[in-house]
Amino acid sequence: MKLWQKGTSVAAEIEKFTVGKDAELDMELARFDVLGSLAHTRMLQSINLLSPEELEVLQAELKNIYKRIEDGDFTIEEGVEDIHSQVELELTRSVGKAGKKIHSGRSRNDQVLVDLKLYFRHQLQELVQDTKALFDVLQEQSEKYKNVLLPGYTHLQIAMPSSFGLWFGAYSEGLVDDMQLLLAAYKIADKNPLGSAAGYGSSFPLNRQMTTDLLGFESMNYNVVYAQMGRGKSERIVATAMASVAATLAKMSMDLCLYMSQNFGFITLPAHLTTGSSIMPHKKNPDVFELLRGKCNKLQALPTEISMLLINLPSGYHRDLQLLKENLFPAFAELKSCLQMMAYMMQEVQVREHILEDEKYKYLFSVDAVNALVLEGMPFRDAYKAVGESIEAGNFATPEAVMHTHEGSIGNLCNVEIAAQMQKVLEAFNFEKVEQAYKNLLQ
Amino acid sequence: MKLWQKGTSVAAEIEKFTVGKDAELDMELARFDVLGSLAHTRMLQSINLLSPEELEVLQAELKNIYKRIEDGDFTIEEGVEDIHSQVELELTRSVGKAGKKIHSGRSRNDQVLVDLKLYFRHQLQELVQDTKALFDVLQEQSEKYKNVLLPGYTHLQIAMPSSFGLWFGAYSEGLVDDMQLLLAAYKIADKNPLGSAAGYGSSFPLNRQMTTDLLGFESMNYNVVYAQMGRGKSERIVATAMASVAATLAKMSMDLCLYMSQNFGFITLPAHLTTGSSIMPHKKNPDVFELLRGKCNKLQALPTEISMLLINLPSGYHRDLQLLKENLFPAFAELKSCLQMMAYMMQEVQVREHILEDEKYKYLFSVDAVNALVLEGMPFRDAYKAVGESIEAGNFATPEAVMHTHEGSIGNLCNVEIAAQMQKVLEAFNFEKVEQAYKNLLQ
Amino acid sequence: MKLWQKGTSVAAEIEKFTVGKDAELDMELARFDVLGSLAHTRMLQSINLLSPEELEVLQAELKNIYKRIEDGDFTIEEGVEDIHSQVELELTRSVGKAGKKIHSGRSRNDQVLVDLKLYFRHQLQELVQDTKALFDVLQEQSEKYKNVLLPGYTHLQIAMPSSFGLWFGAYSEGLVDDMQLLLAAYKIADKNPLGSAAGYGSSFPLNRQMTTDLLGFESMNYNVVYAQMGRGKSERIVATAMASVAATLAKMSMDLCLYMSQNFGFITLPAHLTTGSSIMPHKKNPDVFELLRGKCNKLQALPTEISMLLINLPSGYHRDLQLLKENLFPAFAELKSCLQMMAYMMQEVQVREHILEDEKYKYLFSVDAVNALVLEGMPFRDAYKAVGESIEAGNFATPEAVMHTHEGSIGNLCNVEIAAQMQKVLEAFNFEKVEQAYKNLLQ
Amino acid sequence: MKLWQKGTSVAAEIEKFTVGKDAELDMELARFDVLGSLAHTRMLQSINLLSPEELEVLQAELKNIYKRIEDGDFTIEEGVEDIHSQVELELTRSVGKAGKKIHSGRSRNDQVLVDLKLYFRHQLQELVQDTKALFDVLQEQSEKYKNVLLPGYTHLQIAMPSSFGLWFGAYSEGLVDDMQLLLAAYKIADKNPLGSAAGYGSSFPLNRQMTTDLLGFESMNYNVVYAQMGRGKSERIVATAMASVAATLAKMSMDLCLYMSQNFGFITLPAHLTTGSSIMPHKKNPDVFELLRGKCNKLQALPTEISMLLINLPSGYHRDLQLLKENLFPAFAELKSCLQMMAYMMQEVQVREHILEDEKYKYLFSVDAVNALVLEGMPFRDAYKAVGESIEAGNFATPEAVMHTHEGSIGNLCNVEIAAQMQKVLEAFNFEKVEQAYKNLLQ
Repeated sequence: MKLWQKGTSVAAEIEKFTVGKDAELDMELARFDVLGSLAHTRMLQSINLLSPEELEVLQAELKNIYKRIEDGDFTIEEGVEDIHSQVELELTRSVGKAGKKIHSGRSRNDQVLVDLKLYFRHQLQELVQDTKALFDVLQEQSEKYKNVLLPGYTHLQIAMPSSFGLWFGAYSEGLVDDMQLLLAAYKIADKNPLGSAAGYGSSFPLNRQMTTDLLGFESMNYNVVYAQMGRGKSERIVATAMASVAATLAKMSMDLCLYMSQNFGFITLPAHLTTGSSIMPHKKNPDVFELLRGKCNKLQALPTEISMLLINLPSGYHRDLQLLKENLFPAFAELKSCLQMMAYMMQEVQVREHILEDEKYKYLFSVDAVNALVLEGMPFRDAYKAVGESIEAGNFATPEAVMHTHEGSIGNLCNVEIAAQMQKVLEAFNFEKVEQAYKNLLQ
Repeated sequence: MKLWQKGTSVAAEIEKFTVGKDAELDMELARFDVLGSLAHTRMLQSINLLSPEELEVLQAELKNIYKRIEDGDFTIEEGVEDIHSQVELELTRSVGKAGKKIHSGRSRNDQVLVDLKLYFRHQLQELVQDTKALFDVLQEQSEKYKNVLLPGYTHLQIAMPSSFGLWFGAYSEGLVDDMQLLLAAYKIADKNPLGSAAGYGSSFPLNRQMTTDLLGFESMNYNVVYAQMGRGKSERIVATAMASVAATLAKMSMDLCLYMSQNFGFITLPAHLTTGSSIMPHKKNPDVFELLRGKCNKLQALPTEISMLLINLPSGYHRDLQLLKENLFPAFAELKSCLQMMAYMMQEVQVREHILEDEKYKYLFSVDAVNALVLEGMPFRDAYKAVGESIEAGNFATPEAVMHTHEGSIGNLCNVEIAAQMQKVLEAFNFEKVEQAYKNLLQ
Repeated sequence: MKLWQKGTSVAAEIEKFTVGKDAELDMELARFDVLGSLAHTRMLQSINLLSPEELEVLQAELKNIYKRIEDGDFTIEEGVEDIHSQVELELTRSVGKAGKKIHSGRSRNDQVLVDLKLYFRHQLQELVQDTKALFDVLQEQSEKYKNVLLPGYTHLQIAMPSSFGLWFGAYSEGLVDDMQLLLAAYKIADKNPLGSAAGYGSSFPLNRQMTTDLLGFESMNYNVVYAQMGRGKSERIVATAMASVAATLAKMSMDLCLYMSQNFGFITLPAHLTTGSSIMPHKKNPDVFELLRGKCNKLQALPTEISMLLINLPSGYHRDLQLLKENLFPAFAELKSCLQMMAYMMQEVQVREHILEDEKYKYLFSVDAVNALVLEGMPFRDAYKAVGESIEAGNFATPEAVMHTHEGSIGNLCNVEIAAQMQKVLEAFNFEKVEQAYKNLLQ
Repeated sequence: MKLWQKGTSVAAEIEKFTVGKDAELDMELARFDVLGSLAHTRMLQSINLLSPEELEVLQAELKNIYKRIEDGDFTIEEGVEDIHSQVELELTRSVGKAGKKIHSGRSRNDQVLVDLKLYFRHQLQELVQDTKALFDVLQEQSEKYKNVLLPGYTHLQIAMPSSFGLWFGAYSEGLVDDMQLLLAAYKIADKNPLGSAAGYGSSFPLNRQMTTDLLGFESMNYNVVYAQMGRGKSERIVATAMASVAATLAKMSMDLCLYMSQNFGFITLPAHLTTGSSIMPHKKNPDVFELLRGKCNKLQALPTEISMLLINLPSGYHRDLQLLKENLFPAFAELKSCLQMMAYMMQEVQVREHILEDEKYKYLFSVDAVNALVLEGMPFRDAYKAVGESIEAGNFATPEAVMHTHEGSIGNLCNVEIAAQMQKVLEAFNFEKVEQAYKNLLQ
């Protein structure tokens, strides 16, 4: 059954080709589709396209559907094309003629647009929360292990002393910058496209500010042509922000895979968090870190895929845009599970102490030795040469301890300042406004 | 000549392979390298690694070099590896021993990091200005042509009435969202990495807050390991923001190429802005729009390229990162020229009137006809069916005029509100702070 | 249950994170896993690691499992990790101790490698067949419509006369070049990795040439380290070949979407192959072509995704490689359905005649007019100028007919020669050898 | 000066924007442009569009220009748009009216198409030669170090014994598969597009088979619409083949960077092939391998960039295609220098012996121990368990020697068979035919 069918029958094969995975993916939009209709119908009544009585029955039935969705008691029926059709079908069944009226002043185009914006806002909020949770674990571990030294590498060559405090803290600070991109994506998602209809507006006297307020949007996509142009663009920007978080997790995972290798041996995992080999009985493999790395590298291809779907499409809706859901929707669950798994693993990881006692790390302190000479008054380039010669001659002696005190160094991690940066970005999201709006819509 | 050479000679071919285009690209960093040294030396003196007299001669000579750079009177000498070496070489020539001291407490790693951050801030500021200039042109044209109607398309099929007011305005609003990404990139660039040395900090008691303030940074990259990790990540995020602006320009260009085609014929260009054909004497080709499209689509591959350079590099500096400059640096000039060219062309473009009078556009008004029935009380689905049947029967009559009045529609473009959105994003940049800081450093 | 478990219990959440969609995707490998085991066990017996009696029961049971797979009567049990474990489990249940022996001389690594190679060969064969079927349709339509003229465009500007014969024929010839990439992918897939074990070979005296012959491979991946390195590389190359076919289909679809637009109006579709709009009763949208375009553009991102999973992984197996299946496996079905759908649509598409009679196409013949002057002896540049001036002056007259006769032009399409090129590439595949080998293994 | 100018003046800024780097990049096409004209003019004379006398002077002058190009004595003059214009300009200066005639029967479109095909063939030939040279070095080193053992890793965990023989040999075999893609690209480049004019053929009675033969092409792009469609597609396929070679080099480089790390310490480089640090006097960095890795990872983004330029361009020429040269042309020189540098470095690299004597590698032999039990008759799964228990109990004893004898294993590298595979692919190129054709054209 398709709402736009006018008697001609569409061959089953075409049906399958065109509908694709929509029904499955659309279930993720169900709650948001109902929220959109709750707001849209209130607005329709305010401009007299619905009577107060019609509004009352529609609101009651929509809230009922919302509850069924939350209870897992709602499905898209066989043969119904998408979530929008299913909701409208059920409304028409329950309340008759009033159900047929709710499509006034909107098109499936802006209906799916608003569903997507609400869905992206929701997913971004969950990503923000999971990112913050990982941030907290990393900060804790940074403080806990601030005195455990690690070799620092440049060019994968042993370079200068580092620490687990620095290593954990670095990735926590990385998440602050990623959060800035999540915020940009959120700001772009937090604008109301409802009322743009098929991308060219409507001859009804819609009140778009009203639905903007009801749905807790910060603002609206004013220009109706631009509202439609946001399809794909929102997706690309959301994917870009996710890719940035993913890049941070992937890099961490690469470090961890190296650090687990017997050739580094900086960390270990409890046995139940490793996997074995079908032929090598001695293996304890860090599969979780490898899969974190792989999943997060894969996610970094998502913006490219979206760009390839969008490039050189002229303005106006095209059916291609429907395909944007296919890899993007599952990516939300994937990235959230990666964030949660990394937070869990970072609590379980076992850090090795006394790493630097190994002979091969003794040149780590050559810069500190150069600096000691400089502090005694020797120009830097001369001190560099002197230490270089003592290394070549084999009589370089390691300093007693690492005395790094400036901001962000081994002895002064500045985790408090980093947490303050994170807090500042978090405050720019406005999750409470949305929650309040939904409460008002649903009460 | 390389500062780190210790007697062994590096074969010329290796030299060529490793140095690459650094000297050429580094000239873009020259001004920022000197600004970084002006701040770094002041800080060194504050912790007694330079005497007040040494600071004085160094500051004078650095300002002199800065002036020569601005005057186009500064080059990287044959055989000198990079901008940092060239500046240090000239200092040492001019002021002797004090010149050798300025590398205390920093490494080439954090020196290039801070140069890049200052450079990105500068480039982003110019991109913001060029984007704003295009925005203004689009808003003007939207107002100017708000009464000139266009067919609106979905699926490239004639759909509903649109207008040049909507078309120009839509792309102006698109630039507001792109600006949000430029802002995120700017925020990430606006953090000071200086003092992170080779990525593991320094045993000198550096005052990183002091250089942060002197260089007008909003904050610093605290954790020194993260400061180094920002290499590549900053580039990727800057490229992502540029790609978003580019995507908007490319889409506009695709529309314009179609609209120039005789099969649409919605716009024309004065003859001097078109090009001809070597074999077809009648051709007037929109090469500028095609090149805008191509250049901007090409720019969208830049984030992918950067990701491919970064993926699975463990933490710590790697020489691969040097290659990040090669396509990114020219991309700034490319995107700025595209923004300027588009602004110019949008002032010159000639809009055709009375387009909708052509017979093929008559069904544009079918939705308005449906809505008129709805406003008379017919349920939407029934009205839809009625109009559909009148079209099939060949007796559909076009409404007299377009009466769209809601926010963002043909009759109510909301350009003022869109301009207010743009202004709000622009205010979150803090260009004045930077300008003031530079003035203080250079006076 | 995992075969490599040694008593420690792996938390359920880790299990879910690591196993992912393997069971579902592995079903696609089931047949090939059994074929690999049929060959491997024969080889094991030949080197006395199985007795003739053990071989006999194993072969019988493996053929039984193969039949169940073909009958759709085989599943991976809940809690069983992958297809390899399921097959081994069933063997051990049925034949006891001999079942435990078949993993001798191989690892899951080379077992999955050989499964993948056999699977890719099979999928490539099906893609080749579907590509050839579309080729045939395009050639037929090219011949059928060779006299129906179309405007040819450059810069989307009306340029010179073209024809449907040329248009259909062009895409058929495009598939010949794509076939060359399918052949390269096939050649790379057609090498046996079995016997490379975990990527470092085995201390058993395996006879790898024997399994190479039994499985109908053209050759083997000799070096065992390279055999393992082929994981990911084979996937990338297969995806690249698929992306090339997809690019051809996507470009065709873009042409078709334009040609369906009322502004071109070159083709139409029967009503049952278009879709409607939820608000615009007059719409007949070319959704199938848009989805073909979108699906095929999305496929072009697959090689990028695969590269991002592989970049900077050192040699040796990593668990990341398991993720390669997730988007690649469904891509085979997707591309095959696109090829079939395009072949179907190209048979149904309705071509409009007399297109060039429209006034706007009259300058199409300007080059022919120039050439006519040249044939009368005027130098090309002078003729070009003369015709240009007559167009400017408004007295350009259209020639009577198109007289293009050289190879590949409107009057001489050379479809026979193009078909011969296709045939030549097809002959370089060796599908019969594989079919014969499988028949021998299964009889 | 532009050939298509008809009196209107094109503003300088538009000029700069549209011409871009064409003059610089076009110099790479110069030789091939002349070869194309040598063939085209002979063909024109054969169909009486040139007199024998005109042909004679044109051939003499074209050969003269060809010689000047080879001698480095030819440039594109200021204000001349491209190589084609420059050659035609010089011809017209030297031989007058006949020079004006050579553009008969071709357009700049097919002229640049044929130049590109000839250029790609030439570049691919050089890449094939450099790839073969690296292959030879890797084979030699594999044989030379076949008895030097290395630990083999899976999951970056110590797994099983490997060897430098296997490691070098693996990458040589990898180049065989890459060569298959170079061959596919070559086959696609080896088809003549000349005569397709602006993509719609010509009303002259061209003899395209004649130019096909004269230029040594294997065949032609028959369909003129497809010939034009090859622009971009050829580039993408050539870039794909280059990316595959690059991926092999990048992976090698990643291994080498790890192996150079003190934590692995498997290889060293002579001092003059490493670089130092500006602050750490002890550093000897493997910059060459890092740059090989970075340059080759960057090259893997090239196919994506090309796809992004091409996606959703309808058929027919667009000016966007001109931008394809910008990153592709320099990529040839880049990849060739990477191949040459890797071949050089692989001759210089110093391999460490006795690596496996380190205690941490003792479990490498656990699979061999399992296999020894199996050869004594124990089922594999039981032997696996027994060895696992002896490892847990701490009484696992290492076997005396590695006895791997099957094809492609440590004791039986099969380098001869791998070289034969390489030879077979090489024979499918037909470089001699091209060389003979050029000799005939130029004599």
